[in-house]
Amino acid sequence: MTDTSVDVCTEVLDACARAKHASRALATATRATKDAALHSMADALVAQAHTILDANSRDVERERAGGMSEGLLDRLTLTEERIHGIAAALRELASLHDPVGVVRTGSTLANGIRLIQKAVPMGVVGMIYEARPNVTVDAAGLALKSGNAAVLRGGSAAAQSNEVIVQVLQSALVSAGLPADAVQSIDAYGREGARVLMNARGLVDVLVPRGGHSLIQAVVTESTVPAIETGEGNCHVYLDASAPLERAVEIVVNSKTHRIGVCNAAETLLVHKDAAARVLPAVLAALAERGVTLHTDDAAAAHAPSDAVVVPATEEDWAQEYLSLDIAVRVVDSIEEAIEHVRRYSTGHTEAIVTEDLAAADTFIAGLDTAAVMVNASTRFTDGGEFGLGAEIGISTQKLHARGPMGLAELTTTTWVAYGDGHVRP
Amino acid sequence: MTDTSVDVCTEVLDACARAKHASRALATATRATKDAALHSMADALVAQAHTILDANSRDVERERAGGMSEGLLDRLTLTEERIHGIAAALRELASLHDPVGVVRTGSTLANGIRLIQKAVPMGVVGMIYEARPNVTVDAAGLALKSGNAAVLRGGSAAAQSNEVIVQVLQSALVSAGLPADAVQSIDAYGREGARVLMNARGLVDVLVPRGGHSLIQAVVTESTVPAIETGEGNCHVYLDASAPLERAVEIVVNSKTHRIGVCNAAETLLVHKDAAARVLPAVLAALAERGVTLHTDDAAAAHAPSDAVVVPATEEDWAQEYLSLDIAVRVVDSIEEAIEHVRRYSTGHTEAIVTEDLAAADTFIAGLDTAAVMVNASTRFTDGGEFGLGAEIGISTQKLHARGPMGLAELTTTTWVAYGDGHVRP
Repeated sequence: MTDTSVDVCTEVLDACARAKHASRALATATRATKDAALHSMADALVAQAHTILDANSRDVERERAGGMSEGLLDRLTLTEERIHGIAAALRELASLHDPVGVVRTGSTLANGIRLIQKAVPMGVVGMIYEARPNVTVDAAGLALKSGNAAVLRGGSAAAQSNEVIVQVLQSALVSAGLPADAVQSIDAYGREGARVLMNARGLVDVLVPRGGHSLIQAVVTESTVPAIETGEGNCHVYLDASAPLERAVEIVVNSKTHRIGVCNAAETLLVHKDAAARVLPAVLAALAERGVTLHTDDAAAAHAPSDAVVVPATEEDWAQEYLSLDIAVRVVDSIEEAIEHVRRYSTGHTEAIVTEDLAAADTFIAGLDTAAVMVNASTRFTDGGEFGLGAEIGISTQKLHARGPMGLAELTTTTWVAYGDGHVRP
Repeated sequence: MTDTSVDVCTEVLDACARAKHASRALATATRATKDAALHSMADALVAQAHTILDANSRDVERERAGGMSEGLLDRLTLTEERIHGIAAALRELASLHDPVGVVRTGSTLANGIRLIQKAVPMGVVGMIYEARPNVTVDAAGLALKSGNAAVLRGGSAAAQSNEVIVQVLQSALVSAGLPADAVQSIDAYGREGARVLMNARGLVDVLVPRGGHSLIQAVVTESTVPAIETGEGNCHVYLDASAPLERAVEIVVNSKTHRIGVCNAAETLLVHKDAAARVLPAVLAALAERGVTLHTDDAAAAHAPSDAVVVPATEEDWAQEYLSLDIAVRVVDSIEEAIEHVRRYSTGHTEAIVTEDLAAADTFIAGLDTAAVMVNASTRFTDGGEFGLGAEIGISTQKLHARGPMGLAELTTTTWVAYGDGHVRP
């Protein structure tokens, strides 16, 4: 921290220490108290929508003048309708089971000690994310429901929106009898503040970055606080030799075009050579019809419709998470070659196989090293809501602690409690 | 890696890449193959005991000449008996269930998708540890049983022992049909090699440090590979107002003196003021009788027997993991004061309460933030073997991924597998 000013360092660490202190009240808060606070937060956001929208429009105008792209401006912009949606998500959170206190495992040991392992809050959750003010509320709500305090660092472009939102949430917390310090923003301290947060080991228990590649990589490689890598998805769909035509078309189209800017959208299509002539013409035509640009190898190009936009695929295409109406297409000689391709280029998020062959499905599952494998289903199903987790703080692409969609349970850790009767080790 | 020589960097990364490649064979190896390899490793260690002991005696002689302490020399030294013990531990591992393939959860979603979350190997496990050649075998065995490749970096003092041991293990692996690269040592590359290992993100999936405070802190703060903090234990025993005398004596004595050099030994004794006059004389006498030096506050000192070695406790005493015949003793005004003390000084390993009061037990459990709480039992029970995990790679004092004793299951991650029938997102 030699290049961080003393003031920023002191103030951010002080915020983290206050969060740590507040986390104790949250850890023992009943579900009733936490849910009442979530409803109170939702009510307050709606009641103060005008003030929030004022602050937000100042952020939006400043960033528009500064040349922010339309896509990013859209993510930054709040509307009355969006605020109602955000509030509804908090009420939805309140309806979920409390993840704290869940007994994960337990047994009576041979010596009579009764042992249980139960879920307890992490303590303080740090979030570093981009300029999306909805994430501020989302993260605060998920942290609260799981009994954690939250220290939030949003993108500077949303600083005024976030400041007002956090004030509104803090008042609601206090009115529900919980400490205001349970939700804090450190946006005012800029990038320096984010660096201090990333190194507040001992005060912050886990860091969840949410955003693009460079933000996530910076957090996971530079933090001394344990961090969870989320969200990059170079997802593949593999059409096996036995892939039925109609199913192949539906799953590829859904995986690629259902929503293009999300991490569980497909970016590469692999096709077994024995299926290429049978399925690729219809699959590529369906993609082209929806405006998808095809980045193909030579074998696949031969099956593209004449009116499709076809570009020769380069090494970069295989590795790219387009998040756009683009797909890389390659014909492979075997399922093993498909697996090798995926292992080389995948970000470990989601891969799908379309097949009627049981052995092929098993080979595909066993050969990969990824958070989720879809057999005859769209890659778009890798999602906390779809998996029934209720809420989602992100999708982990790392192996430690959580892999795949992370819900409330993933924001808890565990404590072993052993009940003895004067037991000592012989 | 600017201060790391290019050769070391290339060679260590090459070793990690070969481990990654070998991990694929391990991930799909059957339990029968892995267990046969464990038995083959055990047989080979016993058969080659002479060669191993030769190398070990060279390590020991060199280090003795270099002034290594007797305690460390003892940890470094192998004997024929110890080699038999190490081999027996491998056979014991073979008798445990396979942690790979265990289905953690699963359900049929509303849309008919059948979802399962199953345990899969991490891939490559890195171990950084001190000069204890038994850990080399231990780590290799645990990694193998859980389907992982291992890259090992032991203390340089054991380099010759480790080199021979790894050669023996590799031959055994090959004879069982598994790749030699599944177990590799990078001792030859010294501290530089360890630094490369700590930053081999993408090749190494998890790093487990085992050793003293400075080694563990260096690994967890300097690694970009996700690491698990293990083993520091400033454990507390709290005697509540209602603590029965005999039980208090037994649990304190066992927690402190059963084995003094281990992380689950007690280091501080806290006593409620209402119990001090009743229980402390006998508890302190029992400790003094076993040669324990008492580092006390004034209130506790008043109850020490006249022949005890009593030293006034300083701030350092409360924070210290003695790992010796020393204990810090403090009288507290209330259970809340005990909880505050523990929260301030604990390393988050194990805390025990001795009480007959149900509400006090609940308050103690809820107020702490630690891997394990013992109610009326010795701190010594926090142990993978005691908890029935079978084997133990370490005791995690962090909150991410694993907390408390880590067995084979903690060396796995999970994959979600979704079986659909042509499912697409509507």
